[in-house]
Amino acid sequence: MEIFSGIYGRGPVQAELTDAAFLQAMLDVEVALARALVRCGLADQANADELAAACRDACTFDAAEIGRSTADKGTPVPGLLAAVRARVGERAGAILHRGATSQDIVDTAMMLVARRALPILLAELAGAAEACAAAAREHRHTLMAGRTLMQQALPITFGLKAATWLIGLTAARNALACVCDHVLAVQFGGAVGTLGALGDRGLDVMSSLAAQLELADPQLPWHTVRARPVRLAGALGETLGAMAKVALDLVLLAQTEVGEAAESPRAGRGGSSTMAHKRNPVGAIAVRACAERAPGLVSAVLTSAAAQEHERAAGAWQGEWAPLLELVSLAGSAATALKETLSILDVDATRMGQNLEALLRSPEVREQLAPDGSDGALDPGQYLGVAEQLIDRALAAHEATGDG
Amino acid sequence: MEIFSGIYGRGPVQAELTDAAFLQAMLDVEVALARALVRCGLADQANADELAAACRDACTFDAAEIGRSTADKGTPVPGLLAAVRARVGERAGAILHRGATSQDIVDTAMMLVARRALPILLAELAGAAEACAAAAREHRHTLMAGRTLMQQALPITFGLKAATWLIGLTAARNALACVCDHVLAVQFGGAVGTLGALGDRGLDVMSSLAAQLELADPQLPWHTVRARPVRLAGALGETLGAMAKVALDLVLLAQTEVGEAAESPRAGRGGSSTMAHKRNPVGAIAVRACAERAPGLVSAVLTSAAAQEHERAAGAWQGEWAPLLELVSLAGSAATALKETLSILDVDATRMGQNLEALLRSPEVREQLAPDGSDGALDPGQYLGVAEQLIDRALAAHEATGDG
Amino acid sequence: MEIFSGIYGRGPVQAELTDAAFLQAMLDVEVALARALVRCGLADQANADELAAACRDACTFDAAEIGRSTADKGTPVPGLLAAVRARVGERAGAILHRGATSQDIVDTAMMLVARRALPILLAELAGAAEACAAAAREHRHTLMAGRTLMQQALPITFGLKAATWLIGLTAARNALACVCDHVLAVQFGGAVGTLGALGDRGLDVMSSLAAQLELADPQLPWHTVRARPVRLAGALGETLGAMAKVALDLVLLAQTEVGEAAESPRAGRGGSSTMAHKRNPVGAIAVRACAERAPGLVSAVLTSAAAQEHERAAGAWQGEWAPLLELVSLAGSAATALKETLSILDVDATRMGQNLEALLRSPEVREQLAPDGSDGALDPGQYLGVAEQLIDRALAAHEATGDG
Amino acid sequence: MEIFSGIYGRGPVQAELTDAAFLQAMLDVEVALARALVRCGLADQANADELAAACRDACTFDAAEIGRSTADKGTPVPGLLAAVRARVGERAGAILHRGATSQDIVDTAMMLVARRALPILLAELAGAAEACAAAAREHRHTLMAGRTLMQQALPITFGLKAATWLIGLTAARNALACVCDHVLAVQFGGAVGTLGALGDRGLDVMSSLAAQLELADPQLPWHTVRARPVRLAGALGETLGAMAKVALDLVLLAQTEVGEAAESPRAGRGGSSTMAHKRNPVGAIAVRACAERAPGLVSAVLTSAAAQEHERAAGAWQGEWAPLLELVSLAGSAATALKETLSILDVDATRMGQNLEALLRSPEVREQLAPDGSDGALDPGQYLGVAEQLIDRALAAHEATGDG
Repeated sequence: MEIFSGIYGRGPVQAELTDAAFLQAMLDVEVALARALVRCGLADQANADELAAACRDACTFDAAEIGRSTADKGTPVPGLLAAVRARVGERAGAILHRGATSQDIVDTAMMLVARRALPILLAELAGAAEACAAAAREHRHTLMAGRTLMQQALPITFGLKAATWLIGLTAARNALACVCDHVLAVQFGGAVGTLGALGDRGLDVMSSLAAQLELADPQLPWHTVRARPVRLAGALGETLGAMAKVALDLVLLAQTEVGEAAESPRAGRGGSSTMAHKRNPVGAIAVRACAERAPGLVSAVLTSAAAQEHERAAGAWQGEWAPLLELVSLAGSAATALKETLSILDVDATRMGQNLEALLRSPEVREQLAPDGSDGALDPGQYLGVAEQLIDRALAAHEATGDG
Repeated sequence: MEIFSGIYGRGPVQAELTDAAFLQAMLDVEVALARALVRCGLADQANADELAAACRDACTFDAAEIGRSTADKGTPVPGLLAAVRARVGERAGAILHRGATSQDIVDTAMMLVARRALPILLAELAGAAEACAAAAREHRHTLMAGRTLMQQALPITFGLKAATWLIGLTAARNALACVCDHVLAVQFGGAVGTLGALGDRGLDVMSSLAAQLELADPQLPWHTVRARPVRLAGALGETLGAMAKVALDLVLLAQTEVGEAAESPRAGRGGSSTMAHKRNPVGAIAVRACAERAPGLVSAVLTSAAAQEHERAAGAWQGEWAPLLELVSLAGSAATALKETLSILDVDATRMGQNLEALLRSPEVREQLAPDGSDGALDPGQYLGVAEQLIDRALAAHEATGDG
Repeated sequence: MEIFSGIYGRGPVQAELTDAAFLQAMLDVEVALARALVRCGLADQANADELAAACRDACTFDAAEIGRSTADKGTPVPGLLAAVRARVGERAGAILHRGATSQDIVDTAMMLVARRALPILLAELAGAAEACAAAAREHRHTLMAGRTLMQQALPITFGLKAATWLIGLTAARNALACVCDHVLAVQFGGAVGTLGALGDRGLDVMSSLAAQLELADPQLPWHTVRARPVRLAGALGETLGAMAKVALDLVLLAQTEVGEAAESPRAGRGGSSTMAHKRNPVGAIAVRACAERAPGLVSAVLTSAAAQEHERAAGAWQGEWAPLLELVSLAGSAATALKETLSILDVDATRMGQNLEALLRSPEVREQLAPDGSDGALDPGQYLGVAEQLIDRALAAHEATGDG
Repeated sequence: MEIFSGIYGRGPVQAELTDAAFLQAMLDVEVALARALVRCGLADQANADELAAACRDACTFDAAEIGRSTADKGTPVPGLLAAVRARVGERAGAILHRGATSQDIVDTAMMLVARRALPILLAELAGAAEACAAAAREHRHTLMAGRTLMQQALPITFGLKAATWLIGLTAARNALACVCDHVLAVQFGGAVGTLGALGDRGLDVMSSLAAQLELADPQLPWHTVRARPVRLAGALGETLGAMAKVALDLVLLAQTEVGEAAESPRAGRGGSSTMAHKRNPVGAIAVRACAERAPGLVSAVLTSAAAQEHERAAGAWQGEWAPLLELVSLAGSAATALKETLSILDVDATRMGQNLEALLRSPEVREQLAPDGSDGALDPGQYLGVAEQLIDRALAAHEATGDG
């Protein structure tokens, strides 16, 4: 719903997840199929061109009507085909969808939607990661209390904390990039996975589809073997979790009694309608709201993946669509919210120092920091261990990551 | 997305789950609050009337703009209040939202949306249940094979199978009706749950809200004690599960090799785009697709419910909204699909008999059905046990259920 | 595993969840069945007595061997029956399990295990609730900062916070008690749910089972209509969520920078192995660890409930067993941990006052607490609204609850 | 519980998941740490040797007592350390655990347990995959009906179906092998992740740990950045899903009315206690029971991963342990069950042919198989498309997989 879009549906990824975008992806698959048929000598160029012209703009199709047709057919493809056929001549209509089954189109369109959305998501994540990297660089020496089980434990630097956030984001970006490059694949098997309608050219058509759509060539159809949706969902779940970790720390640091980091006040943002003194961490909250929903959605995809009967599932497949799209949407929304939040983060190094000082006054802590009796508590170099090297490692991994 | 609406978003419940419906619910809560203030002597009738007039039609508000404002505020309420205030005089604006906090409005609106959607859902379920009841009555004596672990076991009647479906639907209806009457409640606590801004009249205002909105009076605010959303989600999850059981049996009975029940062919429905001989059980498939998503959504609500900090949660609360609304939507969609499917179900009693005959030919089965050596297999009365009494019990429970 | 038992497997509930306890429950069901047959004139008293004697002590059976037999049979019942038959004469062996199917025994045993464990769980929860009630009474006037979105907002009392915890626990206790009294039921349907082997006495046998085992008489078998496991799981999920909310607040209040509540130090407890200055909230952490696992387990039960084929499921039913038992175990462990933690909670009212003071110094807050210009901030009576009445309501509901 | 071990806890993987195995893993980590300290000049060889001798056999430690200690400490490590120190001299005791925090030990032990269990799991999976490969080879030309939405659609071969199962298992094996080699890593950060107690040698100690334990060297500690457990859980979830797909097909093929494949009857197996004519697919059912539980467990790990506060989580971390171990156990149990089931699978090619014949009699099907009017239905070569090539591809991928 639009009414919650600032929480759940923010940022540039969302434009790839509309009805029109999905419809366009299905149309693009059908057009690519027609062109592949041409390349394999199974259709005429002119007919493929006519189809391509008719399928150019999804916005000219009636998504609502096609949507209603899914009630009678179980997928939007027959409704879509009827609409396309109404726009083209009989010959072009005759090659439309040749050799394919509905699931080929919907699965490939889903992959294509992800293929288009993920680079945008990756760019948003890169922005968030870069903000962490900047904080890691800037606050390399900013001392603060390390906290375990929510208790102050021993000193760290804010740079190390930011570097830790960074490695989570970097790992997630690498996982998503790997999915984008290797997991998102064409689906093409025809009615029962044999590509029987295309004689001995089925695999050539599949390869052509993959090349045209910039998706992986899957070797075999995967109608009921669902590792691909599972891995896409898993990488998105990991990504939302990595962002949630940052958001959780931000919310904790922003607590009135801690006060070590907060979103900058700006017009309208974060202010409470009734309590002007509050600086609500609304960006971090939006990230958490999105991420909170991820594990359930991933489990829905996993559940569906395990329940795909014979050569095409009777319900489980249809159950995958929404959770997959929702995960992409939530990851996008969270990434945008996190990037924004980190970009306006006020880090209060003074407050960090004050909070830490209270810790360093404890005799047990002094003893631990400098067991030799020297006043180690005054010499961070003695007790920060390898913090700087860890920061360097996190930065190096970040910088080695493609979209960084 | 509209493109899948025939699967995920079917039937009359959906109209209660639009942006406009949620917006209207929030407006209705604000108006009820103004009227409650009047009743408690805390506001003037004229101002409340002015607010009521301004809030009459949610469609005149810009859901997208309010939605975007949630990014800055964490809830749609401040955006909504600004829009209302722009339409009324200063005095009416001054009593708007008095004593309330944003969460009071969103939570109560969520309950109100459910309060409006559930009776419609219950009516759809009643339709599905009545179809089961009709089948139980009609097929009281229709013999078929009972199957355990997917193996033919011993005879039952199709009437008993339908009665078993019926008790699941009846239990779900009773659970939902109980939630509707007792669990859906007003939320009203003000900024930190003390109703501090209303002096000693806070509880009277809360009671008035409950009476006006036909929601339960909750005794205490439940800002971070979330049994109510959990129970709503749980009952919806149970309902989707009860429907999924019916759909699973329908899909199994419709298998080519079993052929005991199928959706009637009718214009356009169930036919395969490429395989005219198939009679795809598309209604049952839609039910399963909806139900497949439920456990993950229920778990999301449970996860959020357990993570609500202090007097208002920082993310977990916002994470509840979509899963709750999605569950209502899916239950509604599945109920409509199931009602339709059951209403056009072709039961093939002859095929049931033929499948059973194969079973009754087995010597082990004959022995078991009539260990005394008589030809018990020819006398169903001997081996159907209490099947008829069970059917009667299921029907009696069905008939005792409110909406039946 | 035992190695984590202090986290996951604590307290008196666990004794009801051992192999021996489950085995005993199955034996008790078989014995109750034999006695029911006697009452219905379908078996001799002497044979039933012989069976009862043989089934008296589950510890004399080999759980591991019976467990291994589930690989060949899909349930532990055939293995158990063989072991019992080896102990009794042929006549007694002949009436053993008469009329029943394996699922009747396992389902009823599961209900019986829950029936025995839940009162113990309820007693632990009552202890936790009483500790909250005591805190609500004692700290009725203890001022502290109310916090929303983790920001100090306006004053509340610690008594109100404890009362809020209390209503969550009270609601959970009522839900569990309702499940215990009305949902936990006998399963009895025979091979395909018709009770065909018992002629016209099947329902009388079912009623006798219910009466003997103190379980509900379910009217119909529920082999593949799984509202009962779903509701048991749901109530346990709600209970774990209610406890997690308290634990979350405790962990937040125990933060070094907040310091408003902590578990009392005592021998060995909560101390860090390497950081003696910390007072780790280990009880609250154990509660959270248990609760964190609940939503996934509830979703597993919901998933299984929706996938039960025909007259007996081929896998989904077996998938229910562990999640259900795990939920009971975790709820028990968390309840014991929470009760203990609350019983040794050091509430630091002075620190609460200091933290609040900082808040009350804010001009915006002063303005809000006393818009008339008086120094409202000095007069809690002016801004605590109905806090005391809310506490009274929570206490009244608590005191009206059975096990309180 | 042992009582269900034939379903949930079967096969050789389980031995790696006992209390003793986890305890031994923790001891091995402590010993490796001592040796690493020696290598870095931070401890004496003799002391490390003394520790190693004391830690050689986990069975000599009291798992129950250490388990109880987790209630007071939140992890089993302090209890374990106390037990080890009681066995060694003061000097050896002094170097024990030097530089480490409890989480370092538990996390690394968890990884080590997985590192030891996964190769065994992979071998079981290789057995199942090889059985699929054998079926794909043997039944390359065995015609059967392809079924979509549970309706007979067009012909395939059983070889292609087995090849499809195979690609799911191959993908899962590759995913698990990748996790085993690259994701399972040492955890080592000390109290707050800086390795502060080891001066500038912390990273060398970490590398030595990795080398000794054959785990990846993680570059940075990952105390609260949980991609590793998430990926382990995800790969196990994918694996269980791939197995569940095979089991689902097996259960469907084994239906009385389909009868195309069944587990061979053998002493005791699959027979019903009361219905001798049934051939219950108990192996497939066990696989499904295990797999049914996976999505909820994966979601639990994801939920925990997203909620890890600051430098060590207060509950979420402890919540990960059981789901991770449970997933390994269930994957192992399912793999053994699946391998066994496939190894005793009776494929009934005659019945496949009969079922298909019914399909081929349909005029619509004949038309589709041979639109040119020839009797294509008699010539499978015409309509099986690229089925053989697909089988070859699946076999090639299988043969290229390490453990195959």
